Order: sequence, then structure tokens, then C-alpha cells
Amino acid sequence: METELPAALKKDIASKKLQFYNIDAVKIAAEIGLGRRINTILQAAFFQIADVIPAEDAFKFIKEAILESYGDKGEKIVNMNYAAVDSAASHLEKVDYPESWAHSTEAAAAAEEATPFVENVVRPVQALKGDSLPVSSFSPDGIMPTGTTKYEKRGIAIDVPKWIPENCIQCNQCAYVCPHAAIRPFLATAEDLEDAPADFPTLKSIGRDMEGLQYRIQVSPLDCTGCGVCVQVCPSRTKALVMEPLANHADTQSVNWDFALNLPDRAKHIPAHTLKGSQFRQPLFEFSGACAGCGETPYIKLATQLFGDRMLVANATGCSSIFGGSAPTCPYTFNELGHGPSWANSLFEDNAEYGFGMNLAQEARRTQIREMLEPLLAEDLPAELKENLKVWMENSGDSKIASETAAKIEKLLPEAIERASGDLKDVLETLLHNADVFIKKSIWIIGGDGWAYDIGYGGLDHVLASGADVNVLVLDTEVYSNTGGQASKATPTAAVAKFATAGKRTRKKDLGLMSLSYGYVYVASVAMGANYNQLIRAMIEAESYDGPSIIIAYSPCIEHGIDMSQSMFESKRAVECGYWNLYRFDPRREKEGKNPFILDSKEPDYEKFRDYLTNQVRYARLKRQFPEVADDLFKQAEADVRRRYETYKRLAEG
Amino acid sequence: METELPAALKKDIASKKLQFYNIDAVKIAAEIGLGRRINTILQAAFFQIADVIPAEDAFKFIKEAILESYGDKGEKIVNMNYAAVDSAASHLEKVDYPESWAHSTEAAAAAEEATPFVENVVRPVQALKGDSLPVSSFSPDGIMPTGTTKYEKRGIAIDVPKWIPENCIQCNQCAYVCPHAAIRPFLATAEDLEDAPADFPTLKSIGRDMEGLQYRIQVSPLDCTGCGVCVQVCPSRTKALVMEPLANHADTQSVNWDFALNLPDRAKHIPAHTLKGSQFRQPLFEFSGACAGCGETPYIKLATQLFGDRMLVANATGCSSIFGGSAPTCPYTFNELGHGPSWANSLFEDNAEYGFGMNLAQEARRTQIREMLEPLLAEDLPAELKENLKVWMENSGDSKIASETAAKIEKLLPEAIERASGDLKDVLETLLHNADVFIKKSIWIIGGDGWAYDIGYGGLDHVLASGADVNVLVLDTEVYSNTGGQASKATPTAAVAKFATAGKRTRKKDLGLMSLSYGYVYVASVAMGANYNQLIRAMIEAESYDGPSIIIAYSPCIEHGIDMSQSMFESKRAVECGYWNLYRFDPRREKEGKNPFILDSKEPDYEKFRDYLTNQVRYARLKRQFPEVADDLFKQAEADVRRRYETYKRLAEG
Repeated sequence: METELPAALKKDIASKKLQFYNIDAVKIAAEIGLGRRINTILQAAFFQIADVIPAEDAFKFIKEAILESYGDKGEKIVNMNYAAVDSAASHLEKVDYPESWAHSTEAAAAAEEATPFVENVVRPVQALKGDSLPVSSFSPDGIMPTGTTKYEKRGIAIDVPKWIPENCIQCNQCAYVCPHAAIRPFLATAEDLEDAPADFPTLKSIGRDMEGLQYRIQVSPLDCTGCGVCVQVCPSRTKALVMEPLANHADTQSVNWDFALNLPDRAKHIPAHTLKGSQFRQPLFEFSGACAGCGETPYIKLATQLFGDRMLVANATGCSSIFGGSAPTCPYTFNELGHGPSWANSLFEDNAEYGFGMNLAQEARRTQIREMLEPLLAEDLPAELKENLKVWMENSGDSKIASETAAKIEKLLPEAIERASGDLKDVLETLLHNADVFIKKSIWIIGGDGWAYDIGYGGLDHVLASGADVNVLVLDTEVYSNTGGQASKATPTAAVAKFATAGKRTRKKDLGLMSLSYGYVYVASVAMGANYNQLIRAMIEAESYDGPSIIIAYSPCIEHGIDMSQSMFESKRAVECGYWNLYRFDPRREKEGKNPFILDSKEPDYEKFRDYLTNQVRYARLKRQFPEVADDLFKQAEADVRRRYETYKRLAEG
Repeated sequence: METELPAALKKDIASKKLQFYNIDAVKIAAEIGLGRRINTILQAAFFQIADVIPAEDAFKFIKEAILESYGDKGEKIVNMNYAAVDSAASHLEKVDYPESWAHSTEAAAAAEEATPFVENVVRPVQALKGDSLPVSSFSPDGIMPTGTTKYEKRGIAIDVPKWIPENCIQCNQCAYVCPHAAIRPFLATAEDLEDAPADFPTLKSIGRDMEGLQYRIQVSPLDCTGCGVCVQVCPSRTKALVMEPLANHADTQSVNWDFALNLPDRAKHIPAHTLKGSQFRQPLFEFSGACAGCGETPYIKLATQLFGDRMLVANATGCSSIFGGSAPTCPYTFNELGHGPSWANSLFEDNAEYGFGMNLAQEARRTQIREMLEPLLAEDLPAELKENLKVWMENSGDSKIASETAAKIEKLLPEAIERASGDLKDVLETLLHNADVFIKKSIWIIGGDGWAYDIGYGGLDHVLASGADVNVLVLDTEVYSNTGGQASKATPTAAVAKFATAGKRTRKKDLGLMSLSYGYVYVASVAMGANYNQLIRAMIEAESYDGPSIIIAYSPCIEHGIDMSQSMFESKRAVECGYWNLYRFDPRREKEGKNPFILDSKEPDYEKFRDYLTNQVRYARLKRQFPEVADDLFKQAEADVRRRYETYKRLAEG
């Protein structure tokens, strides 16, 4: 208490002579079986010490409320909450504090490196002093800097993963699945490690292209949410990760994290198109405010690792717009060159159009540049610049060549401008001013199923049909997650959701099948936990396709009523039992005379289907509350997925 | 001139001593080959007699404008228009009128039977005196009466069909295809015909259920637009219909039409589910302002013959909202009981939702009635009423039984109310007040492809997915017709349209396939001219299905650049060459263990595909204006339809 409580708080407590109690609600909740749910314990503790109504009455009322709130979740959950109420009284500890607290003063805060925006805007807003900021603190166009969540260091995890090098097989799966980019592999030379902190073990790296490099998994304990997904997926026979209390690791590993971040990038030569390779790339989406274990964020994070340095994102309203742009911070960030996603959120109903407009703008600017370059190539220009401009003209649609050439052109232009005069100088200056469009942007239109299947579908369909070169990522939680669990057209038969409290009666809309009916739209259905490689292949194919692409990504969600540390296994089981299917439809294959449809998931084991459903509260609740319809609806749900898989099989057979 | 010109006009001409000319532009246009297009002739005639600029200059400018306007339609059309310009001077006839015209007075108009609304609103508005009407002329809720186009008697046809009884095989096809409900078969007994007008020949009727009845085809010459579709489709070896000048038939046949309309309905016992039978039913959609030969209106007319007396129509913006509700008149009408479609137009973007709401309201009212009836059936009620209420409770979803029982209930209620007292009386009065909902309404959501494929698609998809018992009719002209020919997602590859002036580059959206992916949506693709029976079957199946239905109807349109008298053959050829396919997807069949998908069109003859395209200006223009891409795009268009038919074939094979 002496060291952890802020001076202002201690001063308040002591000067007001407050009765000060402590309760280890986390420990009690874990023991009772409530996991991290401490709300009931704290509520009971409040009524135990606050003299509002007699504590006995309060407990009675709370228990009645528990029955009403959780009754439909089953007797077990009700009883655990009853136990939580009963535990409060005996676990409260009174804190005896010294009188000296009344005179506490804050030690000068250690000077932290942060940008002026963080100092002048982020920190005041987070201290609830945003109303005192002058308008001039903000950019007049409403643009907010990215790369600011890293200054939050929320430290909300109870336990964080600890890396056990001797068990590690260097597969990078922990980093791949991490919803918060809080665990990453790093590569370093022996020389890089000379100034490493004391407790910074590394392994001799294994695998291709790793000659002379050391390998380390590094956790950022204060950015980790403690969801435990990394530990769950670790495939080592003896786990190479174990959850341990944050307090034991915060100090050491925070120092280690900072050191790791400052290591030179030794993985530039390693291709990013494999699971392992992709994880050596800097995630340009990190430390968002998404739920611990979120099933959506790993998809976005992967996309930024693959394309983030040239990404424009149009984000629909929904969870991804909240965790994607929760002012004053932004989890999208940038690399050492300052390149990273540009991100914006418009509305639920126009997000596809919004991204379409971003693409139109890029296309128009690139066309202008091409029109300027054509006559320019006949002019007297430095040979190297002319050569690179020619290469660009011929390859402006190839993202890799365009990016490489763009860098060279931007470097060579100033000297050419120096040498030029008159109109030529003007034109070259205009080119330099527009140098950003030499890079082929990767346009992403991101949203949840509420947007893609429902509210924004009219626009999404129109944009897909347009043939424009945009990429759509649908984070399919099968329910309106952010607004509180309403049914969408992605909600499957029998699932309980708001507006479908007695189980949804109609089957899940087949957005993928509808989209691929155009024939010229790239479509993929993915589920990260079910097939890591299929996902990364789909992302790269979608992005490289010169036309519209849509990736529909199964995203386990807290709204499903599951243990979120298991989210990757939920995906895996979903595919195994036929609940979700994996496929890719690539129009390029048709031009090669091949079947464009590839079914990536095996014949499902439908025996496991019923268990898959009843393991999730959204389905189990139906059985408890409406037993008379549950069996029928579950059967119907199974018939739905069987029919769907058969449809895909026919497509795959051509 | 003496008898045909209105007195006010003659008075104006004579008192102002105007030079008065006449020109038979219709005759000239026909001779030149311009059909009914008289605009160029009249324009030239104007400049010939109006001393605005020298006529020679005017003709030169007009010819330049012709080249610019019609150049892309081909040399032949340009030359015909040149000839039209040149014809004007020599065909103008100066009219010598008597001075007495200056004192013309209108004879008292023959008293015509019309409703107060027609007298007080329709006629003043049509005489361009609408601004003088007081607000109180209109209903405060904005509702306008239906059944008012029959008072217009526009008489716009140049030629009208004349029936030749001795050639007639009594097939009713002429009536089936008529876009304006201006030609109808009538049945009568010898007795009915005792007071018939002099020239009112009939035939002994042939076919089932026709014992003792005479048959006649009757044209309404003043409601006919002269499109000639009826004559074209007449299947008799020697045509039973021939086009003759309106002037020769207007008087006699108008009298005959009125007599036929007043004949007792002798066809009530004839089932409406065949082409022939359906045409003895009164069309409850008649004499709209649609283009002569419109490919959309015959579908709507047929729907009103089958379901019109209990139809609610939500109409999207587009041609069908213009001809469907062109204030002050309305082509929707009612039968002798006063029953007919209730029609309304909301917006382009919410029409499916609008119809969905109509259904919700009906469902809510019917649920209220059912909840009132349950306790009521235990009360002491007249036996016959009770019996009918019971029948209704058990069959309220069956449109036929519900309608029959509703009529009986409405008849029996007043007496029961008389006998009852207290609460029971109140309840029975409420029932009588809500007697309209005993009839099961037929909810129709109607619009064009601009609505269904594009602007309203988000809502349409949502309403289909909802499972609601609504019927959607898409009048697919493959282009925004009413707004001037912009491309929609229904426009096929290679068609020239606004926003696709160099031929559309993406294929036609497969709305049917996307809709049937839900599995519980009834879907039909129809083309009236290709298969009369498939259409009527689809309409009856769609309407009877207790869930969402969508019928996608190929609708030849003046925007296609075709001879509209051939519109039925255009449909026929479209299906023969594979351009359009006929199918029905009926979810009820799946429950019977059958394949729900039935492909109704035969293997196409793709040899005819190219000819089908180039016979329409929308495609032929591409070849003329962009010959370098036309061949490729035509090939792509053929590949598209082949691919589509193969998809349907696979579906049909299960």
C-alpha cells in the first residue's frame, strides 16, 4: 500500500480518516470458479462495510438479483455467485495506515519519452482532464496520430506468460495468435546482445535463413491482457510458456521488451508468407482495448504484418471501430520509416463505399502521375531516375516492385529537381510532393457481421460487384458484439441472441457463396485456429488479386459464452465438426483452366457437432430455457451445416 | 377540323387570324420507315412556317444535330431522319378556316358518369387547373382513390386491333400479353346478349366449363396504345386480330366495350390457374401510362388477375412507381365488391422494408383477432357464426378458405351484434370493424432492377432473409429505365448503358442464385413471352408459399432499342439462345425429399446468342462505336450465360 497507492489517494484516505479495507477478490473468484469475474464479490463487500442497508438484507437482494440475471445460465453459475456473496465478509481485511499518509507528496514522475501529442492530449484525456484542453490541441482536420497505445501500459493482466526457452521449438505460434501483439519473437546477433539486460536468455535460432542469429520470445507484461491464448496454443510437449503473476515479471520483462524493440531488424530477409516468417514482422496493430482473448484482433494484426506499411483501412462501426480508434489512443502504428496503416471509421451503413472511395482517390492520383510521367520520360533526366520511373510505369500495379522503386524515386528526385529549371522543375517537384502514390496502397475494408451481412451489405455487394481492387475483411462473430449481442444474418439457426431469444429460426446467410456468384470476386472463408497456413495464404491471395476480395473470418467472441483462452481451439473444433468451413475461391485459377473453388477443410465429423454447440452458452441456453424446441433447432442447425458443406463439395468438384 | 377541334382553340385561331397548317406526320413517318417517330418531321415543319431563322439554315442545323444524336445508331437511322426533315415543306397543307370560328362556343358536354373525385380533382388537374383546387379537395391522409385511369380515355393509338371472330381459336393469349388491359375475353349467355349493340358478334365458346356460353374478344379502343403485341402473339394460322385505324373503330367498339364491362361475370367457376382461365378474371391494373408495348405491365396485370382483390403493393421508385401512381389517376382498380389492390410507393432504398412493414401490420392485426376469438368461441353465439369463426381459426393462413369464410363472417356479424349485449357486443363490434383482416392479404413488393439489384438490395436481402410471408416481383429491364438508361448490376456484359458507354465490363449479378442460397426463399426466373404457363405457375407457387418469394421477370424495354410490338418474341428468343433462363426454386419440394430446383428452360441454342445481342440497339451500338472491344465483350457475354446455365443445370441435377 505504501508504495503502490498514489500520493493523492493516500492523502485523501488519511486526511478524511476513512475506514480502509482490502479484499483479494481475484483470489476468491478463482477459488470459487468464477475465473476473473469479481463483480459479485466486490458488490457484497461494499454492502458489508457501507452502512446503507443492513448487510443481511443486501445479501438477500443480491442473491435474488443473481437468480434473475444468471438463472438462465444454469444452477452452477448461480451457486458460484451465491458463494461469492457469502465470501465477502470473511475475506475483508482492514488496513491500518499511518497518519503520515495525510502528508503524502508525489515523487517527481520519471521523465518518459513520449510525443508532444501524447504529453499534451493523450495523458490529460486519460486523466479525465480532456475538457480542459484547448481546441488548438487538436488537428483542425480531425486527424489523430497513430502508434499511441504503446504509451498506455495498462498493466491489466493478473497473470502474464513467462517464456521457458528450454521448451521452445521456435514455431512463433504464440505470437501469431496473440490478440494484443504483446508477445513477439525477436532475432539478434551475438553483437546485438552485448548490452542486453541481465535476464535476457536467447536460443540459437533454428530453421532456414537463420544462420548466426539468436532467438527469443519476448512478452510485454504491461501491454498483455493475460488472456492465456498463447499458452494454450503452444505446441511443445512441455509448454514453453506458463502463466505467472504480473507482479513477478512486470519490472524485468518491461526492461527486456524495451531492449528487444530497439534491436536491429535481423529478419528483413525472411519471407513473410509463412506463419513463422510473418511473426518476425512488426505488427502495426498493437495493444488495443479489445477484450482479453479477442477472436477478431489476431486477423487484423496479421494483415498489418503483411501489408501494414502501405495499408489504408476503412472500418465499419462495431467492435473493430471501437478498439481500432478509441480516442485519444490508436492501436494502429508505424514502422521505423514512419509507414503504417491509415485508418478511419465512417458509418455502419457506408463502410464499403468509404473504402471504395479511398481506392478511387488512389487510382485517380496514380493515373495523374502516369499521365505526367509519359511526356517526362522523353526529357533529359538523370539516368538512374529515368530508369526507375520507367520500371515504375511498367510495374505500378505490382506492390513489391512499386514499393522498391518508389523508395528509389523519392531518394533521386531532390537531386534532379536541383539540376532542373522551368516547367521541368515544376513537374519534378509535383512528383516529389505526390511521392506517396508511387507505392501501391493496400485498401482494406474491415467490419463485423452486423456490418457485412446486414446494415452495410447493400454497399458491400455493390463494391464487390464493381470489380474495384479492394480487400474486405469480415470479422464474423455471428452476432452484433459491440452493441450487446443482437442477432445478425450471420447468426446460425438455434443460437440465442437478442431479437432471437428463443433461438434463431433461420439459417446463417451464406455471404461467401453469394459473393462468389459474381465469379470475379476473390472469396475466402478462414478460421485462424483451424488452419494457420490457410489463413495466411488466403490473405496474401486476396491482397494480390487485382480485383475485389473478401475474407470471411470466424471470430470467437466473449458473446458466445466460451472460455476465451480457448478461442483458437473453438475455431479448430468449429471446422472439425462442420460448424465452419474453410475454402478459397480465386478467379485467377479459372483463367488458368482450373476450378476456382478450393475446399480447404476435410469432411467434417458431424458426431462432434452437437457437443460444439452445447459447449457454448449461446446454444446451451436454448436447451435450458426452451428445451421443447432446442432439439429440433439443433437438428436443423446440423442439417444446415451438412447442406452447406455438400454445396461446397459440389463446387470443389467443379 | 370543324368537328374535332375544341371551340376554345378554334376561337383563338380565328380571333388572332393565325396562319393554320396541317401535316400528316404519322403517315410520312410510316412511309419513311420511322414508325411512329414524328418528332423530326414536326420540328422541320415548325421551322418551315415559323419565321425564326431562314428555313434552309434551320434544316442544316437540324441535320447536324441528327448526325450527333443518332450517328451512333447507324447510317440508316440518320438517313431516315434526314428524309423526315426534307419531307416537311412539301407535306404542309394550309387550312382555310371560316371566320365563324371566332364565335365558336362549346356544346354542353355529354354528362358522363364519374365519381366526385374524378369530377372535382382528376379532370381539373388534367386540364392543368390543379393549382386552383382547394386543399380540401384532397384526403388529409394523402390517400387517392384507385380505379381512375378508366376515365381518361386517352385515345392515343394510331391503329387498334380489330377482332376477326372466324379466325379466333379462343386461346386468350392476346389478353394475357396486353400491357394495358385494353383487350379482354368476355363470356355471356344468349340471354345476356339480348340487348347487345348491333355490331357485337360472339362465338360459341370452346373448351371445358364453357357449356352454354358465348365468347367474344373486346377491345377498348380509347384505352389501347396501339402497340400491336396482341396481334403479334395471335397464334391463329390466319390472324384473328388485325391493326386498323383508331378512327374506324373508336365509336362502335367503345360502345361495345361498355356493354361488355356490364355483362354479368359468367367465368366465376373457371379456375384461374391456366393462361386461358386467368384472362376471364378482371385485371385490377388497367390503362396505365406505361410505354406502348411495355414489358413490365403484363406481369403486374397478371398478378392482379390472380390475387388483386386481396393485394397490398409496396412499389419501389422506378417506371412501375410512375405508371403505377401517376397522380391524379391510378391504374390499380377494384372489382364489383370494391376489392382491389392497395398501392403505395415509398423510396428507392427502402421498398422491401416498406412491404415488410405492411406484412408486419397485417400479422399483428390478425394475431389480435385470433386472441380475441379464442375466448369468444366459448360464448353463446349464433351457431353459423361460431362455425365459421372456428373454420377461420383453423384456416386463417389458407387464402381461399379465409376469403370465403371472411365473407360469411362479415355477413353474419351484424345479426349477432344485434342479439348481444355488454362486453360481448363490444367484442363483436370490434370484430366487424376489423373484418378486413379475416381475408389473408397478398403482400407484393414490386420494383425494377435498379431497386432490386442495386439501391434497395440491402433491404431486399434482409426481408428475404427474415422469412416473412411476402412476395417480391422484380421487373428486370437490365437497366435503370425510368431515370434514363443507366447501368445497374442487372445489366449484362457488353450492354451499352449510361455509366457503361463502352459496354459493361462486369457480368450480370445473379440475384436469383443469391436469393436461393438462403434455402427457404421461393425463387423463380420467368419471361412471359418464353413460357406463358411457367409464369403463371411461378406466380401461384410464389404467392401460396408461406415465406418469402421472389420472381425475377425479364421485361423487354424501349431502352433496349427493340421494336416493342415484338416484346414477347424478344423474351422467347432470349430464353432460346440462353440469354435468359427459366427456373423455379421451391423450398416446399425439399421437405418432400425432392430437389427444390427445377430448371424450366431447355438446353439453349447458343448459335443464336450473338444474333440476339446485335438485334438490340443496346448491344449493336457497341459494335458500331467500339468495334475493337465488341467481339471480346460479346464472347465474354456468351461465356457468362453458358457458365450460368451450367450452374443451374448442376443445381437441377441436385
